[in-house]
Amino acid sequence: MSDCEATIGDKLLFTPGPLTTSRTVKEAMLRDLGSRDTEFITLVKDIRRRLVDLAGGSQREHSAILMQGSGTFGVESVISSTLPPSGKLLIIINGAYGHRIARIAETLGIAATRLEFAENSLPDLGAIEDALEEDVRITHVAAVHCETTSGIINPICQIGHLARRRSCRYIVDAMSSFGAIPLSMVSHNIDYLISSANKCVEGVPGFSFVIARTAALHECDGWARSLSLDLCAQWREFERSGQFRFTPPTHALLAFHQALVELEQEGGILGRGERYHHNHQILLEGMIQLGFRPYLRPAYQSYVITAFHYPDHPGFVFDEFYRRLSDKGFVIYPGKVSSADCFRIGTIGRLGEQDVRALLAAIAETLREMNITLQPGQAMVEAPQR
Amino acid sequence: MSDCEATIGDKLLFTPGPLTTSRTVKEAMLRDLGSRDTEFITLVKDIRRRLVDLAGGSQREHSAILMQGSGTFGVESVISSTLPPSGKLLIIINGAYGHRIARIAETLGIAATRLEFAENSLPDLGAIEDALEEDVRITHVAAVHCETTSGIINPICQIGHLARRRSCRYIVDAMSSFGAIPLSMVSHNIDYLISSANKCVEGVPGFSFVIARTAALHECDGWARSLSLDLCAQWREFERSGQFRFTPPTHALLAFHQALVELEQEGGILGRGERYHHNHQILLEGMIQLGFRPYLRPAYQSYVITAFHYPDHPGFVFDEFYRRLSDKGFVIYPGKVSSADCFRIGTIGRLGEQDVRALLAAIAETLREMNITLQPGQAMVEAPQR
Repeated sequence: MSDCEATIGDKLLFTPGPLTTSRTVKEAMLRDLGSRDTEFITLVKDIRRRLVDLAGGSQREHSAILMQGSGTFGVESVISSTLPPSGKLLIIINGAYGHRIARIAETLGIAATRLEFAENSLPDLGAIEDALEEDVRITHVAAVHCETTSGIINPICQIGHLARRRSCRYIVDAMSSFGAIPLSMVSHNIDYLISSANKCVEGVPGFSFVIARTAALHECDGWARSLSLDLCAQWREFERSGQFRFTPPTHALLAFHQALVELEQEGGILGRGERYHHNHQILLEGMIQLGFRPYLRPAYQSYVITAFHYPDHPGFVFDEFYRRLSDKGFVIYPGKVSSADCFRIGTIGRLGEQDVRALLAAIAETLREMNITLQPGQAMVEAPQR
Repeated sequence: MSDCEATIGDKLLFTPGPLTTSRTVKEAMLRDLGSRDTEFITLVKDIRRRLVDLAGGSQREHSAILMQGSGTFGVESVISSTLPPSGKLLIIINGAYGHRIARIAETLGIAATRLEFAENSLPDLGAIEDALEEDVRITHVAAVHCETTSGIINPICQIGHLARRRSCRYIVDAMSSFGAIPLSMVSHNIDYLISSANKCVEGVPGFSFVIARTAALHECDGWARSLSLDLCAQWREFERSGQFRFTPPTHALLAFHQALVELEQEGGILGRGERYHHNHQILLEGMIQLGFRPYLRPAYQSYVITAFHYPDHPGFVFDEFYRRLSDKGFVIYPGKVSSADCFRIGTIGRLGEQDVRALLAAIAETLREMNITLQPGQAMVEAPQR
């Protein structure tokens, strides 16, 4: 893949999404398809089939359900539709997206237990085991694969085995990881996996999707607390007619289909993961050389998004740093983790080594403009200890 | 506007949406914007300002809230967020979209009264007045402006005055009419007006929008039955930061902004309405000449979508008729009204007189292929009487 093929004049997006996408993905949107016409129905069918494959599911036992709206709409559709009236949810939290699942449950009046861990640490499997053992009312467990808050990778597989041992249904928010980090519905014991069009598949935003174990879905008819976000009704309509119940984002789906083809051409999840991993390595080395300190210890760090501490320098004002980078054509991701002053840089989307090196040069220039001199390479020494 | 400028190779969409859009609207999507970057925030602000103007609102007293998902998501966000726990909704129904509001209320556990009328008749204002008088628990009234089911135009203004007299909040589903049929938040006493990006504004699907009276919105904090569809939280975040709470469909918003500019260039709602009205006239005359019979009496008929009875001919099989038209490059809208066998043809989107005449020629050819000869011009005689 050649660098910068994606954008003509647009800033490069080093964010967790919406991302920089390929020109061809965007060009797939230069069409108007009827949402009840055969060509569109065929397109949706192929998208659903490919998603089940990417999730390591089987076409016989799993099904992909597309849901209009952002990723949060997809997560809410699962919580809202699959928890029985008497159900209880155990939520594993070490960042903002875990907390968001808890807010969804709270808003929907669904009983839930929050198991919170520090944002720079992995969830404690023993504590999860204890929580499941102590409360037999828990029917569902929810966890986040890659917490965009910090970029941490959580032990999804191990949590899945704990959930299974207590016969709990298992919900995984794989928003930021799906398409670039291997996942398996079967070996991770996942019942519901949620992700979104504008993440590592490199489509444009407009819908989310859920890959579900159909045997689990079959239990849930009539439980949904919303008409729009009724996952089972959506699934049944896909199965019956191949159609969405309500107007789908046809253009975003055209783009997504093209994105799935391009994902396959790049060597699937492994090929894409390799490019992102390389992006992340270049970024991390370059940032440490510039004197920035990563928030996470290396063992916990994903190659999707990387959080860096604000440098300990009186001249560093994040808003100015962000604006100067943006003016140079590089959009990074603002927003802190709750326990530390950090900013984040995504390394996903249609970006390659040259783009990352260009970003690093722009960061170096920005520091010079702001008269900030940092000590290179201290980061690894000061990395948080286990 | 020149005909057929919109599509290169795509079928023309004579549906209620997604529609045939202009080439320039689609080309506006050939960009990737960061959803928290200044350019996008400025774009969203301008969209919201233009929507308030189009709804006949004032920038001081009204506010536009964009909501991810289809039109139904927008309707549910209003019902879910603005009905107090003790509220009760009166729903005026003469078609599928009225029934859909009732299903939303039912799913959300919101008390509601359904006032049903025949699909080819206007709601009886006296019955609405009586219903409001008889049940003082009713706090909100919901009605559909143009029922896509039949294409009927409901007396939105008169219902608004009845609602106001009983101090009820007034919710209008203007999905199929907004942008092409004048509406006024102020003179129609509307508190919440809902429409969608891919209707008469001629954008692409991906989000809906609500124009709200801010004084009404101020009452509703904490009432939402959903996190994703929380209208007030969405509004407060737009006011606070100019941003969506959750990932917006950036490309659909770029297209929508361009569509709003093109709506203005066409002479606003009146100019666009004129073209649609002309499309409808050509269609109606042509279809009657071909021997089709419109479902609605002329006085009730909108120029947005027109329902026609299946012809009374043993050789007419709708699925074949639809497929043959689709093969010729014309997508019409299947689906019946519940009381009669009908199909529907939309006359909205980036279509003009030549497109409608091309459709009529294709319908004539299709009838010949199917060996169906109809009696021309009977329709007006047999039109349903008041």
